[in-house]
Amino acid sequence: MLFRRFASTSRVLPPTIRQLLSPSQVSSKDALVEVNGWVKSVRRQKNVVFAVVSDGTCASGMQAVLKTDLAPKSLTNGASVRLCGRLVESRGRGQARELQVEEVNVTGDSDPDAYPIQKQSLSTEYLRDHVHLRSRTDTNAAMLRVRNSLLHSIHNFFEGEDFCYVHTPILTSSDCEGAGETFRVQPTASIPANGPDIFAPVSNITTPAPSSSTENPENKEFFGKPTYLTVSSQLYLEAIASSLSRVYTLSPAFRAERSQTSRHLAEFWMLEAEWAFIHSVDDLCSLVENSVKATLRSFLEQEDDISALWGNNDAAEKDRRLSVLRQARDASSWPRMTYTKAIEILQKQHEASPFEFEPIWGNGLQSEHEQWLAASLGGPVFVTDYPKAIKPFYMRLNSDKIPVGEEGHSRETVACFDLLIPEVGELVGGSVREERLDFLLEALCAHGLASRGPNGIDVKDEYKWYVDLRRYGSAPHGGFGLGFERLVSWVTGIENVRECIAMPRWAGRMVV
Amino acid sequence: MLFRRFASTSRVLPPTIRQLLSPSQVSSKDALVEVNGWVKSVRRQKNVVFAVVSDGTCASGMQAVLKTDLAPKSLTNGASVRLCGRLVESRGRGQARELQVEEVNVTGDSDPDAYPIQKQSLSTEYLRDHVHLRSRTDTNAAMLRVRNSLLHSIHNFFEGEDFCYVHTPILTSSDCEGAGETFRVQPTASIPANGPDIFAPVSNITTPAPSSSTENPENKEFFGKPTYLTVSSQLYLEAIASSLSRVYTLSPAFRAERSQTSRHLAEFWMLEAEWAFIHSVDDLCSLVENSVKATLRSFLEQEDDISALWGNNDAAEKDRRLSVLRQARDASSWPRMTYTKAIEILQKQHEASPFEFEPIWGNGLQSEHEQWLAASLGGPVFVTDYPKAIKPFYMRLNSDKIPVGEEGHSRETVACFDLLIPEVGELVGGSVREERLDFLLEALCAHGLASRGPNGIDVKDEYKWYVDLRRYGSAPHGGFGLGFERLVSWVTGIENVRECIAMPRWAGRMVV
Repeated sequence: MLFRRFASTSRVLPPTIRQLLSPSQVSSKDALVEVNGWVKSVRRQKNVVFAVVSDGTCASGMQAVLKTDLAPKSLTNGASVRLCGRLVESRGRGQARELQVEEVNVTGDSDPDAYPIQKQSLSTEYLRDHVHLRSRTDTNAAMLRVRNSLLHSIHNFFEGEDFCYVHTPILTSSDCEGAGETFRVQPTASIPANGPDIFAPVSNITTPAPSSSTENPENKEFFGKPTYLTVSSQLYLEAIASSLSRVYTLSPAFRAERSQTSRHLAEFWMLEAEWAFIHSVDDLCSLVENSVKATLRSFLEQEDDISALWGNNDAAEKDRRLSVLRQARDASSWPRMTYTKAIEILQKQHEASPFEFEPIWGNGLQSEHEQWLAASLGGPVFVTDYPKAIKPFYMRLNSDKIPVGEEGHSRETVACFDLLIPEVGELVGGSVREERLDFLLEALCAHGLASRGPNGIDVKDEYKWYVDLRRYGSAPHGGFGLGFERLVSWVTGIENVRECIAMPRWAGRMVV
Repeated sequence: MLFRRFASTSRVLPPTIRQLLSPSQVSSKDALVEVNGWVKSVRRQKNVVFAVVSDGTCASGMQAVLKTDLAPKSLTNGASVRLCGRLVESRGRGQARELQVEEVNVTGDSDPDAYPIQKQSLSTEYLRDHVHLRSRTDTNAAMLRVRNSLLHSIHNFFEGEDFCYVHTPILTSSDCEGAGETFRVQPTASIPANGPDIFAPVSNITTPAPSSSTENPENKEFFGKPTYLTVSSQLYLEAIASSLSRVYTLSPAFRAERSQTSRHLAEFWMLEAEWAFIHSVDDLCSLVENSVKATLRSFLEQEDDISALWGNNDAAEKDRRLSVLRQARDASSWPRMTYTKAIEILQKQHEASPFEFEPIWGNGLQSEHEQWLAASLGGPVFVTDYPKAIKPFYMRLNSDKIPVGEEGHSRETVACFDLLIPEVGELVGGSVREERLDFLLEALCAHGLASRGPNGIDVKDEYKWYVDLRRYGSAPHGGFGLGFERLVSWVTGIENVRECIAMPRWAGRMVV
């Protein structure tokens, strides 16, 4: 059978079900269209068969109506089909259009008894074991579409602010943040002879690999030094922000954490941005707030996916969560408080109803403290200016104003913030970076990354390049990192980040 | 001094130099503006000082004009500055506007003698050694902006075709393509005691890690099985395309290649797309061609960056290269030929003027063959339907039409293509995937990934999930991978991919 494809746009591929069902899709009436997808449900009546077919481009499938003699036995759940027919206004409820099918082609059948993705609800653990088929469930598919639209809104936001999207390295020689929690990288033991690449044009062959790295390939480092998987792109972004001013990346990051929580993965994606010529932590918070609001706006427009995510689950809980998101989206500005203020409030609360851990100035905020702060304010809250002693070396010292605490010690803080979210906890962390050479050298010494020698301060090799950035045209700058799966978890209401990424990896678990 | 920021848009940050110089920027006349950036050049005259300041957001800097007494000594190349002044029409050549400076603040000075990025031309090798400062050169900064705009055009193209952007895993258990050329991943030896994450809320702690992976952490696999860095996301994308129909990713990929060529990196970025319900290799080629054309359109609009990339280099060569790109962009369709036809043409050429390697049906195309084919056609060319024997297991067998060659053997081919580009060689490779279960099992056996046992074919554990995709609703589908640095190399004319990424990694080399 011949059929016409829509020729209305410059698109290369035939329209998807999302496009065919879109109110803005202009279709010539009675034109034959091709619909491809997978059968989600089949209802056989005496003279007519109703099938819902999904191609995963939107939450709702296409309702297809077939005369019974057109519907083969193999038209079962999970089968892939190519349907040809006419799009007409639907007389049924729930969809505006339906497909009156004139030709059916089952391109791949699916034994309805053996198919692992049955209609009834499947446990989270079962789906983790079938992670390669998991995107066939409505919820997981909706999550993947939400990820996609969050990514687009992030790219659009940063493009609008004139940021440059940069790919920073995954392989790194510095193990700065998570001593012991990094992954080491080495070539597989069975290294082939170091022959030239026969596919390389002779003229392209440049210098041979230094002999030190090839003489004993199994004993030596591939890159000439120990190599790790990155835990953060920040230091690299700082280097590039020192010339392009505004940069960001969306990059995988890795932590060899063995703890098993709903908020940690061994492999996760991070949005990290870094920009020059800021004035304060407030500047940072404003941009973070605006970028997260942009993702909220985008998410809250995806009504069909929101419905798919919640399915038949607790409607009251859904409304409550959506209302928190809407409030956050519409708030003129999210509350900000210093760490010192937060400790005060927490101490007051602790007197009324004790936490497990007493809030004490100088200690990190416990998760219970973070949760309570965000919950008590009913939405996102920025906590700023943490004690210097519990933060990394690169955060800018608040040197102008060092108050003395009740305990009589000076309370040194750094110009940083955490963005806390109800139920999720820390979604974003960031800081103004220490751009003053002398302060940075002090901090490196304090963290054991430099030492005082007879000829001044001796910086460890891995950080020499970083210090260079402060020697030549150092500029005030700062940045942040946002755990992308935590953002997905927050907006979708999916509790565990393992369900917020297509194929999660965590300690002891890598199914495919 | 007080100054007003532009309040004309919803932007959070103050305008960049690109925005200030943009013809579309509406600026109230005589408004005070703040300009931040790094000094690119200073020319001191008796009463007036001219400085060019760049913030890296565009190729051209802002021409700043200062009265001599306003210009401190520290206003030198490389210094970071915050200037406040009025934007006026420029009387000089080369720019429409200039900044009449009223206040200067050198935020970070730069010793002009010690600054590693001097004005005179620096060698490629020198800049590789100073990779953390390299983006301060005009060429490298332009390359990074080009990468950024190519990325945006890729995302826009695939969004327009209703593809879903998916993050596929970097850590993988399959070592399918490059036996021996993969990197192994293990946690660093010094693993901390397996205590609970004190920052995790108690209610979030789920199942403990299986004891098998914690008892002897240093001897066991972190994920319970050997773990590698991905060489391709394809198999994972196929799984998700089996429910979302159209998916793509832009992901780092890794090869532990020790060969040193201008086209290979140990860590590189790949665009990979996979979509269902295609009909043929021609369908694949059309989408590839359109996506690459979209990036060419975007690149060719960036005239300032093109000028910066070429600087004072050979103008004739620049024109020649740009004309090749324009022709490729405007061509109604790029030539396509089968591998068999290509061998015929190459054999004819070989008789006239011998290649180093004789072109023989059944052998891979040598780089010299690829180069010659693309050069003789003056632009991109698709070569399709390679011999089955030299291609991976997942490519679809052209089973309908198996011609017999002159040598008397049947010439089995697979439905695949390579896109060859002058000077670059292979830019894209892709194929229709074998969606037929029985053919796939045969291919797995032939590649040693499955074996015939007493109870039928026994597939290796790592590929069982992949075979599942063919058991349940298998659909005709295909996809491709594009080496992103090679695309950057092609459009920019930068010969070596090491200069096409911010911080390259190759055997023996990881500077920062």
